Amino acid sequence: MRYGYFSDDNREYIITRPDTPTPWINYISNLRGYCGIISQAAGGFSFHKDPRDRRITKYRYNNVPVDRPGRYFYIKDEATKEYFSPTWQPVMKKPDSYECRHGQGYTVISQVMKDISTQVLYFVPADHDCEIWRMKITNNSKSVKKFSVYSYSEFTLWCEPESRNIQWSLHLTKGSFDRDMVLYNFIEPHPAFDMNANKNYVGDRPGYAFMGMSEKVLDFECVRDKFIGMYNSESAPYGVEADALSNSILRGGNGCAALRTSIILKPGEEKEIIVTLGYAEKIEDAAMMRDIYSDSSNVDAALNKVKAGWDEYLNKFKLESTDRDLNLVVNVWNQYQCKTTFDWSRYISFYENGEGRGMGTRDSCQDLLAISSQMPERARKRIFEILSTTQFETGDCYHQFFPNGGKGDLKGFSDDHLWLIQMVHSYICETGDFEILQEECGYADSKKKAGVYQHLVDAVNYTGRMKGPHGLPLILTADWNDTLHLWMEAEKPESTVTAGLYVYALKLLSELSDIVSKKSDIKLFKQRAEKMSDLVNEVCWDGEWYIRGFGSEVIGTKSSEKAKIFLNSQVWSVISGIATYERAAVAMDSVKKMLASEEGVKKLWPPFDRYDQTYGLISRYNIGRKENGIFAHANAWAIVAECVLNRPENAFDYYKNILPLKRNDSAEIYKTEPYVFCQALCSNDALNKGEGTNSWLTGTASWMYVAATQYMLGIRPTLKGLSITPRIPVSWSGFKVTRKYRGCEYEIHVKRGAKSIEVDSVPVTGTVIPVCENKKCVVDVTI
Amino acid sequence: MRYGYFSDDNREYIITRPDTPTPWINYISNLRGYCGIISQAAGGFSFHKDPRDRRITKYRYNNVPVDRPGRYFYIKDEATKEYFSPTWQPVMKKPDSYECRHGQGYTVISQVMKDISTQVLYFVPADHDCEIWRMKITNNSKSVKKFSVYSYSEFTLWCEPESRNIQWSLHLTKGSFDRDMVLYNFIEPHPAFDMNANKNYVGDRPGYAFMGMSEKVLDFECVRDKFIGMYNSESAPYGVEADALSNSILRGGNGCAALRTSIILKPGEEKEIIVTLGYAEKIEDAAMMRDIYSDSSNVDAALNKVKAGWDEYLNKFKLESTDRDLNLVVNVWNQYQCKTTFDWSRYISFYENGEGRGMGTRDSCQDLLAISSQMPERARKRIFEILSTTQFETGDCYHQFFPNGGKGDLKGFSDDHLWLIQMVHSYICETGDFEILQEECGYADSKKKAGVYQHLVDAVNYTGRMKGPHGLPLILTADWNDTLHLWMEAEKPESTVTAGLYVYALKLLSELSDIVSKKSDIKLFKQRAEKMSDLVNEVCWDGEWYIRGFGSEVIGTKSSEKAKIFLNSQVWSVISGIATYERAAVAMDSVKKMLASEEGVKKLWPPFDRYDQTYGLISRYNIGRKENGIFAHANAWAIVAECVLNRPENAFDYYKNILPLKRNDSAEIYKTEPYVFCQALCSNDALNKGEGTNSWLTGTASWMYVAATQYMLGIRPTLKGLSITPRIPVSWSGFKVTRKYRGCEYEIHVKRGAKSIEVDSVPVTGTVIPVCENKKCVVDVTI
Repeated sequence: MRYGYFSDDNREYIITRPDTPTPWINYISNLRGYCGIISQAAGGFSFHKDPRDRRITKYRYNNVPVDRPGRYFYIKDEATKEYFSPTWQPVMKKPDSYECRHGQGYTVISQVMKDISTQVLYFVPADHDCEIWRMKITNNSKSVKKFSVYSYSEFTLWCEPESRNIQWSLHLTKGSFDRDMVLYNFIEPHPAFDMNANKNYVGDRPGYAFMGMSEKVLDFECVRDKFIGMYNSESAPYGVEADALSNSILRGGNGCAALRTSIILKPGEEKEIIVTLGYAEKIEDAAMMRDIYSDSSNVDAALNKVKAGWDEYLNKFKLESTDRDLNLVVNVWNQYQCKTTFDWSRYISFYENGEGRGMGTRDSCQDLLAISSQMPERARKRIFEILSTTQFETGDCYHQFFPNGGKGDLKGFSDDHLWLIQMVHSYICETGDFEILQEECGYADSKKKAGVYQHLVDAVNYTGRMKGPHGLPLILTADWNDTLHLWMEAEKPESTVTAGLYVYALKLLSELSDIVSKKSDIKLFKQRAEKMSDLVNEVCWDGEWYIRGFGSEVIGTKSSEKAKIFLNSQVWSVISGIATYERAAVAMDSVKKMLASEEGVKKLWPPFDRYDQTYGLISRYNIGRKENGIFAHANAWAIVAECVLNRPENAFDYYKNILPLKRNDSAEIYKTEPYVFCQALCSNDALNKGEGTNSWLTGTASWMYVAATQYMLGIRPTLKGLSITPRIPVSWSGFKVTRKYRGCEYEIHVKRGAKSIEVDSVPVTGTVIPVCENKKCVVDVTI
Repeated sequence: MRYGYFSDDNREYIITRPDTPTPWINYISNLRGYCGIISQAAGGFSFHKDPRDRRITKYRYNNVPVDRPGRYFYIKDEATKEYFSPTWQPVMKKPDSYECRHGQGYTVISQVMKDISTQVLYFVPADHDCEIWRMKITNNSKSVKKFSVYSYSEFTLWCEPESRNIQWSLHLTKGSFDRDMVLYNFIEPHPAFDMNANKNYVGDRPGYAFMGMSEKVLDFECVRDKFIGMYNSESAPYGVEADALSNSILRGGNGCAALRTSIILKPGEEKEIIVTLGYAEKIEDAAMMRDIYSDSSNVDAALNKVKAGWDEYLNKFKLESTDRDLNLVVNVWNQYQCKTTFDWSRYISFYENGEGRGMGTRDSCQDLLAISSQMPERARKRIFEILSTTQFETGDCYHQFFPNGGKGDLKGFSDDHLWLIQMVHSYICETGDFEILQEECGYADSKKKAGVYQHLVDAVNYTGRMKGPHGLPLILTADWNDTLHLWMEAEKPESTVTAGLYVYALKLLSELSDIVSKKSDIKLFKQRAEKMSDLVNEVCWDGEWYIRGFGSEVIGTKSSEKAKIFLNSQVWSVISGIATYERAAVAMDSVKKMLASEEGVKKLWPPFDRYDQTYGLISRYNIGRKENGIFAHANAWAIVAECVLNRPENAFDYYKNILPLKRNDSAEIYKTEPYVFCQALCSNDALNKGEGTNSWLTGTASWMYVAATQYMLGIRPTLKGLSITPRIPVSWSGFKVTRKYRGCEYEIHVKRGAKSIEVDSVPVTGTVIPVCENKKCVVDVTI
């Protein structure tokens, strides 16, 4: 069953019925840190800078009813007292027509309910810490109608952990009505409570949440329970059922903003009501924002600015191919998702509630791989943030950190620090910012500073020191696969995947050594890479694939009862160059034979069907789910590996197979959004075969972008320029890409024929185009 | 407005309309650790041993709609397809009549809906880890009716913190249908996650949650979303609207148990459906429980056992007076509440969500003051639990601990350890268990063991060492008043209240020194008490009251702009005996003049109206709320202090004034339950004047019991026997109390006349009756 489709220009996904299988969400945000999540039915919430410490509006995770509350309007016909919502939720009266358009940074929900058509635009302007809800309402009937229109949002206790300590936090809330706005504030929590329960808590929370509107406010509520009524819900709130709101102010209890205005519409007449909701340190700032955005032309201008920003963002890479799906994903939606994962890592989505996990270190390193071209300054800043707040002098890293300051959290993973090298290398390849390597940067656990290059050396040296009995890197708490807990039985378990990441890091680092003229390092790192490669080939080759490592027994071998083969040890042996071509081909053939399926490439096989202490938590997932099923992120690596092997048919098969839009017409099975990748799919071993889970925030986004653009299309930034090695299937005769790179726009035409590359008609030797000094150049590639 | 009344025998509170101003709850539990909370509309949930680590059914705190989910039935007339719930919620169809009876350990909800009358009994049997829902349904119509009856409950992710990490936890859930029951289980979380996010996490969670019923199950759901439907709620679940349930099993996602059966009722016929929901380590155990309780006579027997247990519990103290309110509170409801606070401290209620706070150390010490008579063995066990899991070798204590094992949490309060002495002293006075003082017990932070007496010595010595510039005890993080944070500005703030608690502890301890024959200690502790008393009188007397302490300025003095006077420094100066009679009377007169009000005795005055760094968090409460308003717990101390001063009129005024039942007929203002004390009331300075907050779990319970029985009625256990010093108002001519004490039942008759005490007609000198060797004795007291 299908619930929507992409607009002709690919820039919007248009949802055609409101009851999607899960809430299908969008992000609305700006670079100031004001961010909101909004569903196809206006469910969702907002926060400022950090969803844990500065949450503004409320959202109930995993709630019944689902997807509540949100950014709600109620429209009540004063003649009949009937009311509905212009966004289906929360009143849920079935509209005569419905459409939700999720675009980049905005969402528009349109409805027709009998004679009344409505359109509500939601977005966050670039220049202020607020969000706009602009509703247009049209009377299509032949009589004059009078409506009460209510706007409603529930506020939070600001610091989410406080939502679990209501015996005291609810005594601190304050809501007032001032300058025709509802103003809400909360105050700092018990320091002892926070110091212990939330190590990273920052706790600065001056200022107000506010809601104002463009029309005259007739009455209001600051007290949630006054608006909702004690046993009611948002679907039939007491406040809307009553004749007027009660003008409650709040001194303790749950806060909300509910505003009522009244409009009269002549036949055919359209009016607008604009609500501004946001965060302000001073009341004057709140009033200023409300005043600005109460003018619809300012709203138009602000929306255009958001759209223009996205035009600019998306014009760094543009594919024109005969494959509309690929164009759509690469040019718009994958890039859009990559921006979101870069912003919020795995912190805040419909599935991540923005409390515990913070920003992942390895996650953020990987997220950066896909955005250096579009946002080089933010990439650079993030590199320093990660190095200085997560990396220890010993070279390893905290596993996560928090966006609004504070220190890192969790330690002991064998791979977090190795991603630093991929991150920095990728950033430099994109930007040519070689200077960054010498720039000084602090550590998480000391006052020492060192150049970025030295940080990366520290990282590989850490792994160099942490080796097990076979000489492979110890897996420690876990490697990239968080839930593979070999330490539960083994004393010094080792990881083939960390070995692959280590070799790859050493090779990239030796390239960087060249830049900082550390001749001895170049050689040293190459030697270490070679030595580890030899070792892996010696002790980890299982005949048809690489084993996963050593625990209390050999992990991922033919004789294993479950999990005979793991995807990750194959792909990283290939990507890192550890595997010879021959072995790589055999290993990836085994992947195809044993792991590939309709739903995607499985992460291991056969799946665990009960707890096994040898493997730990991974064996506890239900059969075929998450890391015991299809982990989409690792599918991208399979694609990269197939491209490295120059087997484009396999690469394209894997890629097209896992695209969410492939499941657009069976959304009742896939359930999550067709416009963004999800983290995992239930495999054909699972009960819920084909169900997507944990959409939006996943390393799948950045790695699929890297896989598609740098490996399948083969346009890859290197330290010395753009490398062009397309790996396209035989059915493709060619394609065109326009790509901005180090100040020049490369118009790249790829076609079949005798192998050659010409830049502005001048032939180039090899596959790397030297950095072009002009503003534009045309590259003709024949393959 | 009134929502209910007490039954004639005082043993039940009968709620007469389902839409109480807040959910009015009851606890159903057994000594095995199976416990549930249930509201007047069947909202609530259950857990096993620890509400954080072994939560069985789901409850959404501070939810919209409120009080969901719960223990629900749906009754659908198969002829009309109309359906309703026999407990109003969740369908919320208005019944023709409704009644909820909360008794001790059980709740019965009766309804009439047109021709159908229903009665649902909920309780937890003593002998098994389960709960019973028994519904009787009667057809009062003249035609045969066929109903589908559904039972429904939502399961949890067992460890509540996992409810916030759904991106992974929802992949681990499993629900199956076996032996005609729904069986649900979950598995251990990521150790790294728990170790860091939840220091005290224990994590043993083998076994199953289950639901079975007495009637033939026709179909079922294990998947919550299949029963509820994606955007529906419990009010109109898809499963009930459909013709049958879909027999879903669960392998990931949210779990529930929904069972459907079918019954046919002839005119006038009554049938029973019994649901058993619980926790079992093995499936056979679950089936065994279901089988036992599917027999209604076993349910009757189990309910009778619960009632008999409460008869036994409540017969230790029985007041017969002319004041029905006092009889009702002292004989039934206050004792019932004290048992609950002893069980769960401040951990799990409608306001405390059973996650962060654990069992409070000082809270549990105080809770024990009221239950040693009824549950001496549990009191003894708790004493060792508190000493060994919270007290450090240095003498001070963790601020909280967890019931299912694991270590304590939070440190640095100046008073936690001082309550140990009151606790142990009170236990010995009640039981005569002098041996406990010599019994060895461990510490929280070492392998050292010492006798209980030594633990108490360590406690007072800790305070003896931690003194500030004036020689008063340092307030440290805080004293009894958690939110008075003097350290935010001052370097070494000091507390008059901790000084009072210290002096009181020293005096009690010197009594115990006598028992262990430490002659030098007796003298030493008395001297230290005297010295501290002199100091307090020297530096803390403000002319008409005692100051609260020293921060960056004098706290609680005439010249303070806010909080000129604090209640606690008066009452503890009086109770500890620091104050001379004259000063005590002046101080308590000031309390009456400046703090007493219609709503109760305020904790300070004038209330803070904005944040003041000198005082910290306490100043951030809204005006008149919580510790910035009327804290009921401290009202009990005012009563005790007035009794110490022999001013019974004041004592009785304060007591009667704060009784929840006083507000029975203005429940729309008071909001919380009329049958249990709440922690705080909004004062007449507050916006929500007269509103009660945080009912059930409060030290008010035990201290009001102590105040009423030991001080107002004046029947107080001492080390040497029962002391009898009634402090009754002039309007009382006398009263009768039957009290069990150290194996003897004392029938105590108090009347007016020439002062005398006779035991079995033999005069006694003084006010303490020596321990009686007989099974019964009659005490005639003339005052």
